[in-house]
Amino acid sequence: MSLSVKHLLGIRDLQRQDIELIFQTASQFKEVLQRPIKKVPTLRDTTIVNLFFENSTRTRISFELAEKRLGADTINFSASGSSVSKGETLIDTVHNILSMKVDMVVMRHSASGAPHFLSKHIDVPILNAGDGINEHPTQALLDAFSIKEKLGSVEGKKIAICGDIMHSRVALSNIYCLKKLGAEVTVVGPPTLIPKYLESALGVNVTYDIREALQWADVANVLRIQLERQNTPLFSSLREYAIAYGINRALLDSLQKEIVIMHPGPINRGVELNSDVADSGQSIILDQVENGVAVRMAALYLLAGKQTL
Amino acid sequence: MSLSVKHLLGIRDLQRQDIELIFQTASQFKEVLQRPIKKVPTLRDTTIVNLFFENSTRTRISFELAEKRLGADTINFSASGSSVSKGETLIDTVHNILSMKVDMVVMRHSASGAPHFLSKHIDVPILNAGDGINEHPTQALLDAFSIKEKLGSVEGKKIAICGDIMHSRVALSNIYCLKKLGAEVTVVGPPTLIPKYLESALGVNVTYDIREALQWADVANVLRIQLERQNTPLFSSLREYAIAYGINRALLDSLQKEIVIMHPGPINRGVELNSDVADSGQSIILDQVENGVAVRMAALYLLAGKQTL
Amino acid sequence: MSLSVKHLLGIRDLQRQDIELIFQTASQFKEVLQRPIKKVPTLRDTTIVNLFFENSTRTRISFELAEKRLGADTINFSASGSSVSKGETLIDTVHNILSMKVDMVVMRHSASGAPHFLSKHIDVPILNAGDGINEHPTQALLDAFSIKEKLGSVEGKKIAICGDIMHSRVALSNIYCLKKLGAEVTVVGPPTLIPKYLESALGVNVTYDIREALQWADVANVLRIQLERQNTPLFSSLREYAIAYGINRALLDSLQKEIVIMHPGPINRGVELNSDVADSGQSIILDQVENGVAVRMAALYLLAGKQTL
Repeated sequence: MSLSVKHLLGIRDLQRQDIELIFQTASQFKEVLQRPIKKVPTLRDTTIVNLFFENSTRTRISFELAEKRLGADTINFSASGSSVSKGETLIDTVHNILSMKVDMVVMRHSASGAPHFLSKHIDVPILNAGDGINEHPTQALLDAFSIKEKLGSVEGKKIAICGDIMHSRVALSNIYCLKKLGAEVTVVGPPTLIPKYLESALGVNVTYDIREALQWADVANVLRIQLERQNTPLFSSLREYAIAYGINRALLDSLQKEIVIMHPGPINRGVELNSDVADSGQSIILDQVENGVAVRMAALYLLAGKQTL
Repeated sequence: MSLSVKHLLGIRDLQRQDIELIFQTASQFKEVLQRPIKKVPTLRDTTIVNLFFENSTRTRISFELAEKRLGADTINFSASGSSVSKGETLIDTVHNILSMKVDMVVMRHSASGAPHFLSKHIDVPILNAGDGINEHPTQALLDAFSIKEKLGSVEGKKIAICGDIMHSRVALSNIYCLKKLGAEVTVVGPPTLIPKYLESALGVNVTYDIREALQWADVANVLRIQLERQNTPLFSSLREYAIAYGINRALLDSLQKEIVIMHPGPINRGVELNSDVADSGQSIILDQVENGVAVRMAALYLLAGKQTL
Repeated sequence: MSLSVKHLLGIRDLQRQDIELIFQTASQFKEVLQRPIKKVPTLRDTTIVNLFFENSTRTRISFELAEKRLGADTINFSASGSSVSKGETLIDTVHNILSMKVDMVVMRHSASGAPHFLSKHIDVPILNAGDGINEHPTQALLDAFSIKEKLGSVEGKKIAICGDIMHSRVALSNIYCLKKLGAEVTVVGPPTLIPKYLESALGVNVTYDIREALQWADVANVLRIQLERQNTPLFSSLREYAIAYGINRALLDSLQKEIVIMHPGPINRGVELNSDVADSGQSIILDQVENGVAVRMAALYLLAGKQTL
């Protein structure tokens, strides 16, 4: 089996069987990562360039680890200290890098659609590591993989995505992924942070009441308040946000059922999530991180055209 | 055969047979880079430090790729986030790095002569990746290699170097390299950007008329307008520059002959070169980038004292 | 034999036999580093993350080289361009990185005690590469190793530590290390830069007279004036400091004995140390740097639980 796509630009373009193939491959890699020797040098002759035009800690390190576990050679590129500050266009930068015979590109960019644009001009697989407010497909895949690992399946499960839906590529990718896998999705947050078209366009439920959403849900995927991506200053209302939408122990205990708590990180502790929730047994936040490496290994491996582990 | 020099500080110090040895070795590496498995681990036990005291995307990545293709261990160092900001002298920085038993240094520095200064104090091969407005030898080597690849030889060919000759280490290295290989060289640009001594000192033709230069040439190597390296603000006259010296399709078509277009990148599209030229079949700009890895592999390989592939 | 500690947080926690075990292992690695093939791939299946929350050139490169000589996979992380600027807490950052199945952490942080805090929450070995004004254990180990290499032993030797004792993690780690190995230690510097408790608490001699200290000493370990770590502006008094405490050729010659000169780098030439001393035959500064790689290889190797070379 192989993927139906050449690039991993977004979940929107994937078939359900693509997602399931990635999960199946990721499960095998996750087993490998439990062994003392965690390397599977199947991409030993592959060079991967990590093009990060936007800051990232965990995503960049997670990809770099995934690449090294697969035995690939990695080249890191970040926008600061680059020709980008000399005004070179995106496509020139990438064309140049590819002329050096690089085999795959992992790319993060602040402009929505940047990897899609590139995919029309270059010939090697592109893996979108987050583009603007559009998609962050490997995050959605690792989130759904973690739900499946925790609850046995995604099909039929009720997932509440909480917080700043408007500015979140994680939310959008999650919605696509969860719907394709047969989950029910509710988005919850302040009206100003939820786009009006979501309900009709994507078939999700919308509510502005966090308690109602949690009461309904099997899983709450709590998003980070992306202060740095908002045009209106939210600092003055952070406390207000925490009071109205922050998830804490008291709120969870009042539900009289136990739901699974997820967060893509980095957490604003005391804002969208309190430590008494984030560090509790209900949280699978660190499992998400661990699964991230396995899922990214699977995506890289399949995009490289490998078919048997 | 081996090089007549211990360091690659500039083209000025090379013999013609050094250049030819590098080309011959680069040709062999270029063949390797067409194979599915692109590595030749002949420098497996060599550690190379890339000391970039000045920003660079493509040169740093090109060197890092060349080093990894040869199986070397690489350490990257950039000036930001370094002791350089603590006021450490250049020689202390390098002495310290070499005491750690590094085998080779690739170095870019904003001060002309910095690698020559170092070469008097340290014992391992130094490869100049660009020093101030002095030289950028691997760029000139890959340019000449690309001309030879395209036209069969460099000897007797007519090369126009266009643009900001004054501030360009690429221009100076190119002039040395092309003259040593028997090409005829014309430099063309605004009078303010061409040093007066060039004609008498280096035996190149000087003209201020771009059409005349292109009409004469087999190849135009179009330089980047180095806005960041000029003391006088040029921004107000960029449009003026583009009109007088920018190379576009109409100009090329009016020549009634087909010349080869080169550019060391990054291109200021719409200034020194229009996209209808840069992306056309006459352009070998991406071949230059590809050849850069092979030429740098050859230079590293020969400086490491290796003699048979 | 193995270390009595699981982490290398500071010299304070070590037994004398720990230090001796590290020295013995480092001696073996130093022999390896003299060979043409300098790699000992005993940590081939180990992934080490270098978490540098504070700038560093030589320490980061020294660790990275040590890791690569041991065949480990390395991931570099620096605070700039990281989630730290998004306000993520230290423990979240590290938890996340560890969830990715990293085997060891090398960490530099501007907060004293940061690695100790982490060691209570994470399960893999932590190697402190400098925490605030607390400790810098590998620097002290390589300093003592270099003294032993030069003078045959540390036991009974007289070591003067010169300069800004107050703000120096190098000074504190050196004092612990040298005392445990049976040396006599004198600290010397301006009264404002020497904490009052040192003499009674740590059993060192205190003097404010540099000539007296050097006359007494077998070895002077001259610290860097840490301009960037001081709250009071010292710039106005740098010349004053150089006159009162700077070590130059005339001062050394007037001693009528030859002492060994050390410096952890980077040197403020002309301030705490003149070039006619730093570059003289009495200086073992570059030996310190070279020994740094061997000592760090030993520390990493032993913390990884390896027991035979």
